[in-house]
Amino acid sequence: MDDEPRKPGTSLDVVYHVRCDARSIEERARAIAIEQSVEMPVTAITDEFLRSQIVGRVAAIAEKSSGLFEVRIALAGETVGRDPGQLINMLFGNTSLHADVFLHDAELPDELVATFAGPRHGLHALRRRVGAASRALTCSALKPQGLPAAKLAELAARLAEGGIDYVKDDHGLADQAYSPFAARVEAITAALAGVAQPSGHATRYVPSLSGDLDDMRRQIEIARDAGIDTVMAAPMIMGFANFHRLVREYPGIAFFAHPTMAGAAIAPPLLLGKLFRMLGADAVIFPNYGGRFGYSPETCRRLAATALKDWHGLRPCVPVPAGGMTRDRVGEMLDFYGVDIMLLIGGALLEAGAQLVEATSAFTAEVQGYGHG
Amino acid sequence: MDDEPRKPGTSLDVVYHVRCDARSIEERARAIAIEQSVEMPVTAITDEFLRSQIVGRVAAIAEKSSGLFEVRIALAGETVGRDPGQLINMLFGNTSLHADVFLHDAELPDELVATFAGPRHGLHALRRRVGAASRALTCSALKPQGLPAAKLAELAARLAEGGIDYVKDDHGLADQAYSPFAARVEAITAALAGVAQPSGHATRYVPSLSGDLDDMRRQIEIARDAGIDTVMAAPMIMGFANFHRLVREYPGIAFFAHPTMAGAAIAPPLLLGKLFRMLGADAVIFPNYGGRFGYSPETCRRLAATALKDWHGLRPCVPVPAGGMTRDRVGEMLDFYGVDIMLLIGGALLEAGAQLVEATSAFTAEVQGYGHG
Repeated sequence: MDDEPRKPGTSLDVVYHVRCDARSIEERARAIAIEQSVEMPVTAITDEFLRSQIVGRVAAIAEKSSGLFEVRIALAGETVGRDPGQLINMLFGNTSLHADVFLHDAELPDELVATFAGPRHGLHALRRRVGAASRALTCSALKPQGLPAAKLAELAARLAEGGIDYVKDDHGLADQAYSPFAARVEAITAALAGVAQPSGHATRYVPSLSGDLDDMRRQIEIARDAGIDTVMAAPMIMGFANFHRLVREYPGIAFFAHPTMAGAAIAPPLLLGKLFRMLGADAVIFPNYGGRFGYSPETCRRLAATALKDWHGLRPCVPVPAGGMTRDRVGEMLDFYGVDIMLLIGGALLEAGAQLVEATSAFTAEVQGYGHG
Repeated sequence: MDDEPRKPGTSLDVVYHVRCDARSIEERARAIAIEQSVEMPVTAITDEFLRSQIVGRVAAIAEKSSGLFEVRIALAGETVGRDPGQLINMLFGNTSLHADVFLHDAELPDELVATFAGPRHGLHALRRRVGAASRALTCSALKPQGLPAAKLAELAARLAEGGIDYVKDDHGLADQAYSPFAARVEAITAALAGVAQPSGHATRYVPSLSGDLDDMRRQIEIARDAGIDTVMAAPMIMGFANFHRLVREYPGIAFFAHPTMAGAAIAPPLLLGKLFRMLGADAVIFPNYGGRFGYSPETCRRLAATALKDWHGLRPCVPVPAGGMTRDRVGEMLDFYGVDIMLLIGGALLEAGAQLVEATSAFTAEVQGYGHG
């Protein structure tokens, strides 16, 4: 593995964390470099271009802690082309089958990032749409699944009366018989149209897409015809290439990305903060620390920073910490993340039952008043 | 969680393995049941239908070993509808984010399995296409990526001269500039047409699909126009719903499913043997024990048995153990799996270099002669 470094900005520089004993780590690292590139014995490759340019190269190995190594591998940008599915195949593909290897980070070729081009709307547009100049945004979720469309629409109206900016479908809402997508869009947009906001900007409904690519196109068109300009999708379930395809086909639509099926083997700042953003997520939902999931504060901070930071000129993607958040954490979360954020409280608002409007009003008032207290 | 059991055959009975201390397991199990269904505090759900039918129910908890529990949860079939993407969302979705929960198995509603309907071709058709009455099938892989189409075609011709049944693309071959899909199909089908098999049945080329759903449709049509009747796809990269969509749209095409991005958090017999088969995989590639990956013999045996067994009347899906196999393991693998199998040797044949035809002939002769020795 003594070939020359490649031209800067053209290779994928991929960082894996590998649990391994110290004697075996060099061999493991080489095996990963081969698995994620040519997938065959290098001795059997005679072509000089392949040996120097296509075979993955171990760039560095460092011990992070006892038995845990950070391995950097350089892969050729040509192996990805411009295909988001092939990107994740090259980054982790077969290596994902190993229980002791984690995909930690990746630097990507300039051209690749420019090709995908990131959010078409991003933080500033999502603020503008709801008349929020510079404050944090608010969001809630319609659930539980099993409710008919009319009941979900009632909840949406009450959340809107409480001044919420965005109301998204729970990610369990698909196109089920008890609440089909089209019926949901019709009932909820009608309900929201009846609620005036002091800002003059209506609460936005964010329906969740499901099914195959063509189903999702039909759903977006139903939503768009009803005046909706934001939808939610799950890149790990629909596939990276299909997610990015919708981003390209519907440039007027903003996309919330949901983390379902993201697993625990790819670092959340990379997967949710960097890759989802690069493919076009305008906002990314993730499980906040101290909720129902195990992400640490440091993971959440890095994820949010990655989604927002100056990177290849992409628009900032709105971090949406969620997953069991409550009103009593609003101040703490804003202190922690700052105001370039969307706070999503679902179940803890719905628990208010008959006081849903009041609970929502208290939530939105606190977010709107933050920093002016 | 004291409601009545649901009607047999209508619920998803899902088995998770959870690393947890004994004092917390009941609460963890309830939390998973809620996360994978209504995703909100059950106390806030007043509707009786939802409480009894839609909220997930903990059916059983058993300690497997110290600190490892098997948890059975019943989910309503209505929550899935007929959407393969929603199926995996309900089975594992948000729970996949927990590093200490593994999806071990699932019994699925009869109607769901009947809807998806499994392989359209399966073992017997894949044998018939290559004139193999009852023996194991043989396969090799075209690689490494980076080679131009003409070089891959040369390899394909030599593998065919050695009598191989199926030649698949390496899963790293996408639609890259150095070997675009259309050029590959043209060169390889031309090369294979020039090699007569003693059986009278030509070696089948199995190109790998990549990109979004529409890209894959175009690729299938290019392949079909060239006389190809088998393709390879990666359900975890393209998404379950899009994979199943292609199976429905192209009933004349047989599909090999590749495990890339399958991760290590879903039991391979369930994911590769049961779910991929149900969605229509005619053959499923998986890493054999004792190769480059960590699957145990027991995992491989269960995976192959699950792909083949009588189950809801589906056709058998061909198990394809792979991932670093060599000729000297042929007898052992056939003893282990029996002959309802396809043996895939890639790199270890290509290593033969100038003796590729001879190495392939020795491989195919051993498989064909097995049991007649």
